[in-house]
Amino acid sequence: MDKLILTCAVTGSIHTPSMSPALPFTAEDIARQAIEAAQAGASILHLHARDPNDGRPSCTPAHFMGFLPQIAQGCDAVVNLSTGGSATMPLEVRLAGPLAARPEMCSLNMGTMNFALYPMADRITEWRFDWEEPFLRGTDDLVFKNTPRDIATILRQMGQERGARFEFECYDTGHLGMLAHFRDRGLIDGPIFLQFVFGVLGGMAPLPENLTHMKRLADQYFGTDYHFSVLAAGRHQMQFATMAVGMGGHVRVGLEDCLTISRGQLARSNAEQVEKVRGLVEGLGREIATPAQARAMLRLKGTENVGF
Amino acid sequence: MDKLILTCAVTGSIHTPSMSPALPFTAEDIARQAIEAAQAGASILHLHARDPNDGRPSCTPAHFMGFLPQIAQGCDAVVNLSTGGSATMPLEVRLAGPLAARPEMCSLNMGTMNFALYPMADRITEWRFDWEEPFLRGTDDLVFKNTPRDIATILRQMGQERGARFEFECYDTGHLGMLAHFRDRGLIDGPIFLQFVFGVLGGMAPLPENLTHMKRLADQYFGTDYHFSVLAAGRHQMQFATMAVGMGGHVRVGLEDCLTISRGQLARSNAEQVEKVRGLVEGLGREIATPAQARAMLRLKGTENVGF
Amino acid sequence: MDKLILTCAVTGSIHTPSMSPALPFTAEDIARQAIEAAQAGASILHLHARDPNDGRPSCTPAHFMGFLPQIAQGCDAVVNLSTGGSATMPLEVRLAGPLAARPEMCSLNMGTMNFALYPMADRITEWRFDWEEPFLRGTDDLVFKNTPRDIATILRQMGQERGARFEFECYDTGHLGMLAHFRDRGLIDGPIFLQFVFGVLGGMAPLPENLTHMKRLADQYFGTDYHFSVLAAGRHQMQFATMAVGMGGHVRVGLEDCLTISRGQLARSNAEQVEKVRGLVEGLGREIATPAQARAMLRLKGTENVGF
Amino acid sequence: MDKLILTCAVTGSIHTPSMSPALPFTAEDIARQAIEAAQAGASILHLHARDPNDGRPSCTPAHFMGFLPQIAQGCDAVVNLSTGGSATMPLEVRLAGPLAARPEMCSLNMGTMNFALYPMADRITEWRFDWEEPFLRGTDDLVFKNTPRDIATILRQMGQERGARFEFECYDTGHLGMLAHFRDRGLIDGPIFLQFVFGVLGGMAPLPENLTHMKRLADQYFGTDYHFSVLAAGRHQMQFATMAVGMGGHVRVGLEDCLTISRGQLARSNAEQVEKVRGLVEGLGREIATPAQARAMLRLKGTENVGF
Ligand SMILES: [Zn+2]
Ligand SMILES: [Zn+2]
Ligand SMILES: [Zn+2]
Ligand SMILES: [Zn+2]
Repeated sequence: MDKLILTCAVTGSIHTPSMSPALPFTAEDIARQAIEAAQAGASILHLHARDPNDGRPSCTPAHFMGFLPQIAQGCDAVVNLSTGGSATMPLEVRLAGPLAARPEMCSLNMGTMNFALYPMADRITEWRFDWEEPFLRGTDDLVFKNTPRDIATILRQMGQERGARFEFECYDTGHLGMLAHFRDRGLIDGPIFLQFVFGVLGGMAPLPENLTHMKRLADQYFGTDYHFSVLAAGRHQMQFATMAVGMGGHVRVGLEDCLTISRGQLARSNAEQVEKVRGLVEGLGREIATPAQARAMLRLKGTENVGF
Repeated sequence: MDKLILTCAVTGSIHTPSMSPALPFTAEDIARQAIEAAQAGASILHLHARDPNDGRPSCTPAHFMGFLPQIAQGCDAVVNLSTGGSATMPLEVRLAGPLAARPEMCSLNMGTMNFALYPMADRITEWRFDWEEPFLRGTDDLVFKNTPRDIATILRQMGQERGARFEFECYDTGHLGMLAHFRDRGLIDGPIFLQFVFGVLGGMAPLPENLTHMKRLADQYFGTDYHFSVLAAGRHQMQFATMAVGMGGHVRVGLEDCLTISRGQLARSNAEQVEKVRGLVEGLGREIATPAQARAMLRLKGTENVGF
Repeated sequence: MDKLILTCAVTGSIHTPSMSPALPFTAEDIARQAIEAAQAGASILHLHARDPNDGRPSCTPAHFMGFLPQIAQGCDAVVNLSTGGSATMPLEVRLAGPLAARPEMCSLNMGTMNFALYPMADRITEWRFDWEEPFLRGTDDLVFKNTPRDIATILRQMGQERGARFEFECYDTGHLGMLAHFRDRGLIDGPIFLQFVFGVLGGMAPLPENLTHMKRLADQYFGTDYHFSVLAAGRHQMQFATMAVGMGGHVRVGLEDCLTISRGQLARSNAEQVEKVRGLVEGLGREIATPAQARAMLRLKGTENVGF
Repeated sequence: MDKLILTCAVTGSIHTPSMSPALPFTAEDIARQAIEAAQAGASILHLHARDPNDGRPSCTPAHFMGFLPQIAQGCDAVVNLSTGGSATMPLEVRLAGPLAARPEMCSLNMGTMNFALYPMADRITEWRFDWEEPFLRGTDDLVFKNTPRDIATILRQMGQERGARFEFECYDTGHLGMLAHFRDRGLIDGPIFLQFVFGVLGGMAPLPENLTHMKRLADQYFGTDYHFSVLAAGRHQMQFATMAVGMGGHVRVGLEDCLTISRGQLARSNAEQVEKVRGLVEGLGREIATPAQARAMLRLKGTENVGF
């Protein structure tokens, strides 16, 4: 089997500061946790920015630049910037940071969907910042918009014009079909790096049969010209990680996707999750790709061509 | 096996008049084709309204009332009104007709999604009305919005307040999961009538394994407390109809979903598709439910309680 | 899609004369029904011999030669001889007829299995011949033996030495795996013609999800270098035939597999089933392969190289 | 989720002494390794006997009685005796030991199949005992016979007459169907304990989609009235164990199924595998059932009712 590409998604835009003291939102904490995750074995760092004052998701270049140079200095992991930003933001806002930073990789969500986080709000008893509760409760009407026109824009501005390659986030079977449609239009070339996302209400449920089904569809659409990685939101994180390891896939962990390290136990850091999954991966007989190996597998442009 | 509930979706909001002369858009043509479809065996008529002047999708009560009384007089098929209207309309517009008409059933789309019809535009050489081409080409940025808040609104206004029961349209696995979420919230009771929709770019692809996978998920979520019906857009219509028949499911046909009767041959009417699928169904040894049988199977409120 | 190869299995060794007056067992009846099936559209005739005195399964060359020349004269359908014979016979007996006749194709069962027909015995009220009831009731201890050594023998004697190509009968997922094992050993080359068999107690159940699962496995094992055909024993025959048509597969019907033409109604002949399935196939927009087209698709040696 | 029932299959009849010095075949070694496996966490011990002189599989009561009393004294794990014995033995030989020992559980293979071990022979360079190579090479013609009559015999003699409950070993989808057939005949009651077996040439291949497919079928056949456990032969052992953990299943490990502890590294003992899988199970947040908990979950008769 291939070397396993281990992505760590350090902070994201789903969880809010009240949910865990370990969730990083200052530039220093994002940088430090990212570097430690890389030291613990992460091949790729999937990054969002946040406003350091209140942890609110942000896509402004300044917030990204608060931690990107530090990370580039502190480790050689691949930097992968989200173009999803926060589902509440219009596309031009979501793209501001990535357009400025010109990373080696960026994420690309392959469909429009509901992104319903409101069940999380009831589990929080004390709110740290004002924006958190309205944001979470309002997700019962939140559309995460990623239309074909949006997708084409990102492919052109980030891919064609800036040389980024993509983590294609697929939350359901139709997202894979949309990706095949863009491949058929000649706008995507291989090797395709798929991220299957399980457990967001609005997308696929975290059921093992959904994972084998997605793999089957990917085989049909893309033959051998793809890699797949797996993430499951919340408490299914490690379960899906281990299935992915066994199926020849790659894995994404990190506090963006899950805040715990075991049932009911908050993770102390991103690195703690990386270490845990690393043990699983190696116990099952696979090896984790170094950043250099990940760059070769995914045909990345290299750190000398980024904007930070 | 159960009697097979045969739905005919007479005109919809996807196809445009330039695509087929048989696509009905005047009140008279919608009523006539609906009644003929019922006479040919349709248990349920799934209906949208259109502007009789140019075939543009419409949800105004007046346009619905142009054909609903005629249909109610001309046949006893169950009337099922779309709450999807056209994906371009906001929810309050989409609901105007159904709120006024208070039908026995209405459709309910269980997720927000891309609804990409633009590949159709290139196949049309002569445009009959001005609105058609911009509508189709603009679907590369069209969001069909059905958030949890929208869904809750429809459940309350159409279901709780007006006694309608639902055709739950599921375009992907996440839509089934959303339905299970609403069931868990106590807002939906059985028997649940699922409509699996294949072949819209943005939703599930028309692959047989997607159909068996959806059935598997429905089994897990809903046990024996559901029925499923199948529709496939375009040329996969009859293929998926026959699979559904063999799997114990129900079937939807009609010009909303597919304009042809065989490869490259436009259907002359909705009734022609109903007749063809009826032959398939009976050739495979199943019987089509009468409207009365469908009413009993789905626990409908009866024609005496509708507003037309 | 490919032309559809329609196989008719004329008499087999499972059903017994008491079950249907239409089941052919004299040489004349086998020949006549085979030719009529070919005239009705069958591309391939899958044939077993029977003792003309009492309908008992037989593999003696004389019994085969009672009908093979007539069939070869009366039609140009591909002749495919079973090497399964009857599950009660040892391999050398099963091979006697095929070794002598040197057909263009022969069947090859890819696994050892239970072949439990005893539930059929209770449905028969009047036995026409003495051997029937003990045969059927004894199948609770019947092993249908097709070990790797047996398979290798058939591949060598019928394939390598006599130029036959194979209908690889797969009754379960392990049979596909065994076929892949022989491919890996270099003993099988493409295009591989798979026959998926559903509904024999001991093999796969006639569930649609088993069909999509088998197709998935075949895709993984054989990529594009295979064709698959589908048969379902008993009342699921037409249901599985239509699913196969929709999935791009080929179809086998005939009185070997199913004695009815619709629920509870005995078929009058093999040709009646061929006609019925032909209507389904053409109604779904596919075309049936002529014998010449089937020969080209499967790379057969041609009628000039057979021994009858 | 349920507590996880961890079965250790200590020696079996597949592997031969030349393959690993850790494979136990003397009564002392079997007893010691079984007890250590129980101490390491095994809830159930699945046991075969062997001839202590040369490690040849045996079913004689004397060989079983060489280790059963020691095991019963040394630990309280559930003793589960194989009725498969070795595939080379006729049923009456296979049953001799279990009939005498009257264990709480015994295995029951739900189908007849090829059991092709010959590819293993080529990997052995030095043979420790004479019988090993002919046994392994001869498996190209080996039928593992488990007909419906055999199954009925075991159900009656071991179940009805001696109160054992069963580990139903299912090597393919048809084996599950056969089990459903016996349930329909009223000969089996729940809770049903399924053992899905992957990776024996002749049965299901060790593909993750085969596992999710088997689970799906079990759901359809048995609803909530079953438990499933998973074993994969050879190097897929830990991969399938982890998938089973994530899917809510139970797990079987042990030197019967796999001789290694990681790629290319022979396990030193059964206990070493139990410890490794225990780490996986607990790392994924599940708890291992104590023998008492397993007895309650499977409704076992208790150690006071066994014959050793
Ligand atoms: Zn992200
Ligand atoms: Zn509609
Ligand atoms: Zn045959
Ligand atoms: Zn065993």
